[in-house]
Amino acid sequence: MKTGIGIFIFAAGKDMAANTAMYSSDGDFLVVLQHGVLDIQTELGRLLVRPNEIVVLPRGIRYRVTLPEGPVRGYILELYQGHFTLPELGPIGSNGLANERDFQVPCAFFQEVTSSRWTIVNKFNGALFAAQQNHTPFDVVAWHGRYYPFKYDLGRFSVIGSTSFDHPDPSIYTVLTAPSEHPGTAVADFVIFPPRWLVQEDTFRPPWYHRNTMSEFMGLIRGDYDAKAGGGFRPAGASLHNVMSAHGPDAETFEKASNADLKPAKVGEGSMAFMFESSLMIGVTDWALAECKKVQEKYSEHSWASLKPHFKRPV
Amino acid sequence: MKTGIGIFIFAAGKDMAANTAMYSSDGDFLVVLQHGVLDIQTELGRLLVRPNEIVVLPRGIRYRVTLPEGPVRGYILELYQGHFTLPELGPIGSNGLANERDFQVPCAFFQEVTSSRWTIVNKFNGALFAAQQNHTPFDVVAWHGRYYPFKYDLGRFSVIGSTSFDHPDPSIYTVLTAPSEHPGTAVADFVIFPPRWLVQEDTFRPPWYHRNTMSEFMGLIRGDYDAKAGGGFRPAGASLHNVMSAHGPDAETFEKASNADLKPAKVGEGSMAFMFESSLMIGVTDWALAECKKVQEKYSEHSWASLKPHFKRPV
Amino acid sequence: MKTGIGIFIFAAGKDMAANTAMYSSDGDFLVVLQHGVLDIQTELGRLLVRPNEIVVLPRGIRYRVTLPEGPVRGYILELYQGHFTLPELGPIGSNGLANERDFQVPCAFFQEVTSSRWTIVNKFNGALFAAQQNHTPFDVVAWHGRYYPFKYDLGRFSVIGSTSFDHPDPSIYTVLTAPSEHPGTAVADFVIFPPRWLVQEDTFRPPWYHRNTMSEFMGLIRGDYDAKAGGGFRPAGASLHNVMSAHGPDAETFEKASNADLKPAKVGEGSMAFMFESSLMIGVTDWALAECKKVQEKYSEHSWASLKPHFKRPV
Amino acid sequence: MKTGIGIFIFAAGKDMAANTAMYSSDGDFLVVLQHGVLDIQTELGRLLVRPNEIVVLPRGIRYRVTLPEGPVRGYILELYQGHFTLPELGPIGSNGLANERDFQVPCAFFQEVTSSRWTIVNKFNGALFAAQQNHTPFDVVAWHGRYYPFKYDLGRFSVIGSTSFDHPDPSIYTVLTAPSEHPGTAVADFVIFPPRWLVQEDTFRPPWYHRNTMSEFMGLIRGDYDAKAGGGFRPAGASLHNVMSAHGPDAETFEKASNADLKPAKVGEGSMAFMFESSLMIGVTDWALAECKKVQEKYSEHSWASLKPHFKRPV
Amino acid sequence: MKTGIGIFIFAAGKDMAANTAMYSSDGDFLVVLQHGVLDIQTELGRLLVRPNEIVVLPRGIRYRVTLPEGPVRGYILELYQGHFTLPELGPIGSNGLANERDFQVPCAFFQEVTSSRWTIVNKFNGALFAAQQNHTPFDVVAWHGRYYPFKYDLGRFSVIGSTSFDHPDPSIYTVLTAPSEHPGTAVADFVIFPPRWLVQEDTFRPPWYHRNTMSEFMGLIRGDYDAKAGGGFRPAGASLHNVMSAHGPDAETFEKASNADLKPAKVGEGSMAFMFESSLMIGVTDWALAECKKVQEKYSEHSWASLKPHFKRPV
Amino acid sequence: MKTGIGIFIFAAGKDMAANTAMYSSDGDFLVVLQHGVLDIQTELGRLLVRPNEIVVLPRGIRYRVTLPEGPVRGYILELYQGHFTLPELGPIGSNGLANERDFQVPCAFFQEVTSSRWTIVNKFNGALFAAQQNHTPFDVVAWHGRYYPFKYDLGRFSVIGSTSFDHPDPSIYTVLTAPSEHPGTAVADFVIFPPRWLVQEDTFRPPWYHRNTMSEFMGLIRGDYDAKAGGGFRPAGASLHNVMSAHGPDAETFEKASNADLKPAKVGEGSMAFMFESSLMIGVTDWALAECKKVQEKYSEHSWASLKPHFKRPV
Repeated sequence: MKTGIGIFIFAAGKDMAANTAMYSSDGDFLVVLQHGVLDIQTELGRLLVRPNEIVVLPRGIRYRVTLPEGPVRGYILELYQGHFTLPELGPIGSNGLANERDFQVPCAFFQEVTSSRWTIVNKFNGALFAAQQNHTPFDVVAWHGRYYPFKYDLGRFSVIGSTSFDHPDPSIYTVLTAPSEHPGTAVADFVIFPPRWLVQEDTFRPPWYHRNTMSEFMGLIRGDYDAKAGGGFRPAGASLHNVMSAHGPDAETFEKASNADLKPAKVGEGSMAFMFESSLMIGVTDWALAECKKVQEKYSEHSWASLKPHFKRPV
Repeated sequence: MKTGIGIFIFAAGKDMAANTAMYSSDGDFLVVLQHGVLDIQTELGRLLVRPNEIVVLPRGIRYRVTLPEGPVRGYILELYQGHFTLPELGPIGSNGLANERDFQVPCAFFQEVTSSRWTIVNKFNGALFAAQQNHTPFDVVAWHGRYYPFKYDLGRFSVIGSTSFDHPDPSIYTVLTAPSEHPGTAVADFVIFPPRWLVQEDTFRPPWYHRNTMSEFMGLIRGDYDAKAGGGFRPAGASLHNVMSAHGPDAETFEKASNADLKPAKVGEGSMAFMFESSLMIGVTDWALAECKKVQEKYSEHSWASLKPHFKRPV
Repeated sequence: MKTGIGIFIFAAGKDMAANTAMYSSDGDFLVVLQHGVLDIQTELGRLLVRPNEIVVLPRGIRYRVTLPEGPVRGYILELYQGHFTLPELGPIGSNGLANERDFQVPCAFFQEVTSSRWTIVNKFNGALFAAQQNHTPFDVVAWHGRYYPFKYDLGRFSVIGSTSFDHPDPSIYTVLTAPSEHPGTAVADFVIFPPRWLVQEDTFRPPWYHRNTMSEFMGLIRGDYDAKAGGGFRPAGASLHNVMSAHGPDAETFEKASNADLKPAKVGEGSMAFMFESSLMIGVTDWALAECKKVQEKYSEHSWASLKPHFKRPV
Repeated sequence: MKTGIGIFIFAAGKDMAANTAMYSSDGDFLVVLQHGVLDIQTELGRLLVRPNEIVVLPRGIRYRVTLPEGPVRGYILELYQGHFTLPELGPIGSNGLANERDFQVPCAFFQEVTSSRWTIVNKFNGALFAAQQNHTPFDVVAWHGRYYPFKYDLGRFSVIGSTSFDHPDPSIYTVLTAPSEHPGTAVADFVIFPPRWLVQEDTFRPPWYHRNTMSEFMGLIRGDYDAKAGGGFRPAGASLHNVMSAHGPDAETFEKASNADLKPAKVGEGSMAFMFESSLMIGVTDWALAECKKVQEKYSEHSWASLKPHFKRPV
Repeated sequence: MKTGIGIFIFAAGKDMAANTAMYSSDGDFLVVLQHGVLDIQTELGRLLVRPNEIVVLPRGIRYRVTLPEGPVRGYILELYQGHFTLPELGPIGSNGLANERDFQVPCAFFQEVTSSRWTIVNKFNGALFAAQQNHTPFDVVAWHGRYYPFKYDLGRFSVIGSTSFDHPDPSIYTVLTAPSEHPGTAVADFVIFPPRWLVQEDTFRPPWYHRNTMSEFMGLIRGDYDAKAGGGFRPAGASLHNVMSAHGPDAETFEKASNADLKPAKVGEGSMAFMFESSLMIGVTDWALAECKKVQEKYSEHSWASLKPHFKRPV
Repeated sequence: MKTGIGIFIFAAGKDMAANTAMYSSDGDFLVVLQHGVLDIQTELGRLLVRPNEIVVLPRGIRYRVTLPEGPVRGYILELYQGHFTLPELGPIGSNGLANERDFQVPCAFFQEVTSSRWTIVNKFNGALFAAQQNHTPFDVVAWHGRYYPFKYDLGRFSVIGSTSFDHPDPSIYTVLTAPSEHPGTAVADFVIFPPRWLVQEDTFRPPWYHRNTMSEFMGLIRGDYDAKAGGGFRPAGASLHNVMSAHGPDAETFEKASNADLKPAKVGEGSMAFMFESSLMIGVTDWALAECKKVQEKYSEHSWASLKPHFKRPV
């Protein structure tokens, strides 16, 4: 039994083979689409997923994906234990962040094809198995229950933040969380950095420099991420700051923010960065580190070597 | 054994009698000072409480209050079950709202007076008892532990709110909460409405019209409360909207907010309103309702009779 | 603040007064209709309640009741603390008893009457208050949320029971439960005895003789209750066995069941008895005990005095 | 440290070697005896286990097994984390399913052999170790406590099921459960299908077709299992439907049940099938898959290929 | 429904009337016998209770008490909510304090008297009711379950305490606790001060001076209590220190302990004091305060007026 | 991600290299110093650790160690999941065992070295990585929070034990515990055997013979351990009794204790043994078992072969 999570960056150019469906016995797929459109036929109905939307395909649910607008690119977090849920909002109250009513669930959709030959591909314990059957898997006429695929438009996220001073933890941007058995510690959090107002007074507004017990895998759907002014972090790319690795805004961002006039400012317009955060260490495959030749060389020097102290005397 | 809460509005013109100390066996006192200065000598040390500060005097702790700057006025919530605590912040993370480090705890302070005659007044089951002793109760040379009086400056509250659209529940302004055994339901919440930025787009920014299962007792420390533009709610006054009584901004506030230009705006400067919120019904004494002759007549008509529908066509 | 529950038996002959609505600040109403039809207009939409259906009207929700088919009779349990919920099913699994999908929730329904004069009657701390307003309270155009009135047809209850031997506790017939803070102890359970198969081998099939820590208030919607063959317990009537009062089938039922051939048998066809069960003692008003002159005299003698031992020798 | 479970199918022809005892440091043994009799001497006393009985030997408890009636066969589930317990019954109440009083615990039984040479075999982290000692391990004169071996006669199980319509989850047949830290998710459940009455109206009475997040390992102690009319599943055999592998009654069972007259029927007389169910994937050894040559070829085709749609028009 | 506790001090000179049995619907009786012997016939069997033993008679269980050795005296705590249980031992581990195996439960004992006339007296909501029946209530031939009367010999208590320095809280002497829904806060604790060794170095060994949120009702079964050397607290007497009332050893005990040589010392031989401790305020009846004329006058002066400071200079 | 624990025995002769700091991403270090002095510079300040003290260095906190008094020796437990905490004291009450106020936390201490070259060594997933930077990591001017290194002097432990008869579990000596998600089961406990009084009457006072589900790794800081009179267990050494391996006092200890006069006795003066206890199996490296040639041969025979029965007739 796999535990923890897997992270995949995908790119695909064509539809899944005809009369073929897939499902995973290993975990739930959280798909963050970065480019293109996914037309996902599931046993429980169809979901059309467009950029800035995410989709969750639960363990065991069969699906077939076609690409109505050509090539697609994106990120997948496969969750091998538990399921994603909305975070308990605490003092935020009964609504805010991702509101339950904005998640979209498919209506039943079925086909009466009983004589064709179908291949069902199963991801089981990290390997792929195929089975043949003589009828479509998409034959569910109606359904009810609490276990289903769903999609969510990230543009509907109701952003909460400081309206006085200081900088809350990035947990305030949590869309979905997959809690571990240890309260307060997530197997995985899905966090976004959407367009929002910054109004904090007397505050360095970008994220602080920090290291922490969570691993942070970041991706970018579109636009620029406001803590990476210096480039290198582009849409469809990713950064990884593993358990207790120190990081923070790059030198250029630091310089700019340290000299900024702290009037209300709208940031992130036209942009959507996100984070897969986990209490687990995230290993990287040899292929990703070496073979695919996409690693940014001297990331650390590039980002922080030119940082200079910037004192403001207390008044 | 008393359960639930008691709410008192107090005004005092002079120091407690010499060589007299008080304590309550019934509950913890949360004192919201509205006017003047309290110099509180407790067994565990001294606390000087100024306007815009609150102080908590726990059950059983003896104290003596003097008034270095003359007459005082304020509000007391006596909590007959449990204790006040900081709310679990949930996605807000590890800091925000009232930060633990801003609560101020007294240092030990003692006197070596062993021959004077002291009176100790005890509030026990709602009655007052007096005992005599021949030494000061303020003889604690040093102490350690987790049970102590403390004060908090409301100006240190780190306000969190919407930085996109919509209006979170007032729970987002919780300073202290006294939870019941039923998760999510408080015996009492202490909530404030401090100066803060409003930046919500496409949103009616004052509180919505609502009725709810919590009783809402509001008070005003200084300035104007932004949902009561029409007057009637003044510093040292109070309003009470009991369990399931509908209420909301007055007609004048509604009119103004419905026509407002939704640019970033700083509200509440120079003001501090607060709320004692409870899952219990709040009874009112005959004295308060009738004898003290301070009730605002026709509050309901005054506030809401002139409300007019205000449609905005969806685009 | 009221805690615990109130039980009311009601009979009404005509509609509520025109332009009048009611709500309770004290608790949720669970209405068990025994006779007639209720047309309930609530702020969140309309519910037509027919015999063998129940309806829950939550605290604070306004409603107006009309009687399209004339006089009505029934039982109300008002729940002063918490809310009704479905019981955790434990080993019964993901469905059974009252299935969530069978509860019916109203669609929004509104009227554009803005010039009439309305009276809103509020039950608050056991007393009735009336307020006037110049528009209908039934003006909600659309709504979403998790707090709403609902109805349930008792005929949809999926009965679970012994399919081998022995007699489970009546908790196996729980439709709705209002849990206290003490796990396993309910403020109120709503339990029904619907038509069902009895197949237990080597078993005395009616309820056992017992006394217990729960108070049992029983009512009868229609037909005969299978443990009261001897009469006296009729539709629209009620029985009360308070905390630790011993009781059980009447002598006639005992005699019959002791001699019965234990083949599969369908019981309760055309009948529906129910129980309000509570961990609290249930007091009875003077009116109910004396003035209304409806108490069954010598209930105890009538039911059990002629009981005779009935031994079966072990083989 | 091993986690999860191990499943073993065993067959033995003779007693354990003289003056030899065993114990496991890895987990608790749940032994489901299929054929023969086990005379188990444990440190805490003797247990004679006959067909249709199960026995639990906890981690660390030493035992010696002899076979008074010759060869034995059966199944073992070794539980590497936690312990087996009775399921919380929920609405089933205070008794039903496996009743606590039917579990049988040994009385102390000791021998005064102090000069013989004994070998103690320990299963530790999956390997076997042997130690020598010069006295019997079965020298416990008396004991008290809550950690002991026990046996249970499956014939004492009080079966609960639908007495109206529909088909509860197999969890309703749970004898023992080994919960994980995640409420509602078991490391292992031990479930049986004993003789019982089926009375559901308007219902397809065999198990439904399904796939689920639990792995299902089934065995058969005696008789025929009512969802496998088509053969292939014989006493001492086993079937495995792993995480999210779809399955259900075979075609022959489906045909029969679809045409059955739904009168009360006693099923499973003279039969006892069981299931080890786990939230973990169950791997299979190479020996079991290939070398032992006992796998049923074309199980899938054999069971389900001849399934035909069977419509009943709604009335 | 009564909540909380009731405390009674009783003295009785003769047996309960013939053919009479009693039970309480209000709560469980914890009887601390101070003098004499109780022969208690319960529905579940007989219990002979001697001095230094306690007995618990649960709500609803009928009993009849006779006095084989003449007059008796003692204390009763009636628990109106929940039940007594052993405290979670925490780091003390799997045994210590009152060991579960030392509680004694009756065997079934029945009489075949079916023609006599019996009176059953019921304490219900604080009042007494009587019912007549024509057979003995003591006709239970056999029983099983987890709800029964039991007795415990206080001499079997395994005392734990400091074996180095300092003075643990009296909770370390807890025999039975009746927890409230608030973890760590008991509706009632039953605590004893048995014979034990004191070995603490550099420590004032009697209880410290304190006031606390729990009410402390103390009684004495026999001997002298080691913190009340000055008299006034005698067997069959009682002291009450209510919520937040300060108290501690009397002046004589203080003087002695301050000058004691801190060698190992056995205290409490031949003595048994106990405490009913509750998180609730304990009211006192007018009869106890005034009419029975047993209150110790000037208790406070007598105990503590002559206290003198006693400094030990730190070395 | 590593889970569970690692145990290391260390010896070091000189300071860490200049301008070098270390931290672990894998877990928290609990260091039990056996010989010498550690001067630990951490980001949050300096800690001077002397014999009989322990220090905890949390995951991610950088430190540099120097040896002001020459060579050091000790034990490290690295905790890969969760954190150490004080045990819930249960009936022991509000103080006892390791008191919270005795843990010592560093004050901020910083250096203004901004031009030197530093090497930061990171233990990540069991491997070591090195990074270079051009400023000291010890530049934290002030800090607040709840995540910090701390030290504790084992001599401040307030020992609790039996003051009557019997022998509590070693859990009564718990200094710190790292709980698992399963209540009552620790990933690791740190337990000590400090100087203390033994006063139990009628009791074999050394530890009993037992085997249990916890692995016990013992070490000795100084002196003799009172259950190992026969030698072999020396300061800086260690013993390991893994899951369910039986053990107990050696034969010499048994003989002495069986004949001892049970007067109050102070044991362990000048000694400090400790135990790392874990619910996990503890593997041993090949180096430790074979290459380092430090394993005590025939430990089992040496300790227990000469044990002889020792009967005391009950009086």
